[in-house]
Amino acid sequence: MCQLLGMNCNVPTDIVFSFTGFATRGGRTDEHVDGWGIAFFEGAGVRHFVDYEAAIASPVAELIKRWPIKSKNVIAHIRKATQGRVALENCHPFVRELWGRYWVFAHNGDLKDFAPSLTGAFRRVGTTDSELALCYLLQELRRRFGDTPPALPELTAALRELSAAIASRGTFNMMLSDGTALFAHCSTQLHYIVRQHPFSTAKLSDEDLAVDFSTVTTPDDRVAVIVTSPLTSNECWIPFAPGELKVFVDGAALPL
Amino acid sequence: MCQLLGMNCNVPTDIVFSFTGFATRGGRTDEHVDGWGIAFFEGAGVRHFVDYEAAIASPVAELIKRWPIKSKNVIAHIRKATQGRVALENCHPFVRELWGRYWVFAHNGDLKDFAPSLTGAFRRVGTTDSELALCYLLQELRRRFGDTPPALPELTAALRELSAAIASRGTFNMMLSDGTALFAHCSTQLHYIVRQHPFSTAKLSDEDLAVDFSTVTTPDDRVAVIVTSPLTSNECWIPFAPGELKVFVDGAALPL
Repeated sequence: MCQLLGMNCNVPTDIVFSFTGFATRGGRTDEHVDGWGIAFFEGAGVRHFVDYEAAIASPVAELIKRWPIKSKNVIAHIRKATQGRVALENCHPFVRELWGRYWVFAHNGDLKDFAPSLTGAFRRVGTTDSELALCYLLQELRRRFGDTPPALPELTAALRELSAAIASRGTFNMMLSDGTALFAHCSTQLHYIVRQHPFSTAKLSDEDLAVDFSTVTTPDDRVAVIVTSPLTSNECWIPFAPGELKVFVDGAALPL
Repeated sequence: MCQLLGMNCNVPTDIVFSFTGFATRGGRTDEHVDGWGIAFFEGAGVRHFVDYEAAIASPVAELIKRWPIKSKNVIAHIRKATQGRVALENCHPFVRELWGRYWVFAHNGDLKDFAPSLTGAFRRVGTTDSELALCYLLQELRRRFGDTPPALPELTAALRELSAAIASRGTFNMMLSDGTALFAHCSTQLHYIVRQHPFSTAKLSDEDLAVDFSTVTTPDDRVAVIVTSPLTSNECWIPFAPGELKVFVDGAALPL
């Protein structure tokens, strides 16, 4: 199994604190040593970093921990291989373009007998069930909505239906973002927190590190962090219900 | 105008030496300060780094100069904006997937009145003529060959024809790779060199740096480097003819 980390904010925010705790699970406090990756939206563009080294041993992960890239939508992943060998093309997140936007996707879980019929518009490059799921999701979105992206409620409804269908084939904890919204689907395990005014101090569970967010934020900032298992020991993380798909926009979970 | 750098090899090779000279043109020895990018194939996967900072000021460029990523196909670009604002989504190289392979593309030049009819299968995310050219190239490849990638001679013939058509709209110096071959088209300026046994010492034009390749290679290694203007002062770079498209495989230019 793998672990997922996502962040969605109303102002560009750096993920150094959360990523530091998360990356520690890539070989030190946990067993996810088969690669890692992270993607940051900046405007319509994406910075995409993947590596098949363990996150604790990767020079790029070291860079990310020191370099405060500011983004409103981030998705990260540390990998414990289940399907697909340890190779760069099998590292999440995966990126594709649809409707003139990049879509970033990461998955935790294992899909069995998942062999959707692909028309060829989106094909996987590697050999993971996860990349296959992304290709299927985007193909079906394009099939339903054609060349015009739908409004958020229609998009959400479609993703909820498609995620449920994929989840019927196994475990499908996933995060997907087009740079404006972050969609998170839970099969088995996912938690989130919304940090907003008044900000307080958070202490990482996996590293001896704390940050007082009140000193690095303005009262209007709002940040949602979504992760497989809680990153901090002194905050109240909200568990997703199995089968739940949530949409985060501007640092808040939209009402269902 | 921008500058292009490509490398195609028969064994995974690092590009630290060439990139060091090239990146210097991103703000020190030349004026290309509107972003830069580089993509490395590793197997079927791609490491993709883009930044809208000048290459001489970018923390990622600094990392690339110190970290010997080994690859058989690399494409890099430094940008002097002509069309499209300075933004991450407008930095080359661009990456798309077709036929279950990633395609990496970078362009130097300016296309006028270039408004190809796009079906929607590939759309640009940013606002450059360059990304539009990539979308058009891939769309036309898929239209001609359907879901099955053609053999290299047919692919080359198609790219030669499509490149000539695009070049009729302006300047189209470009590099494109699917991880197995590197295609380079010249409208106005492009040079290449093939380094092979017996290897000698090369001296960068843009930095006070030399490397004796005989100490870091085996007699079987072969490396083609393709660049807008020659990177070294003591080697014989071969200029492309205007309108020429060359294909590099395993470090050699294929016969036309």
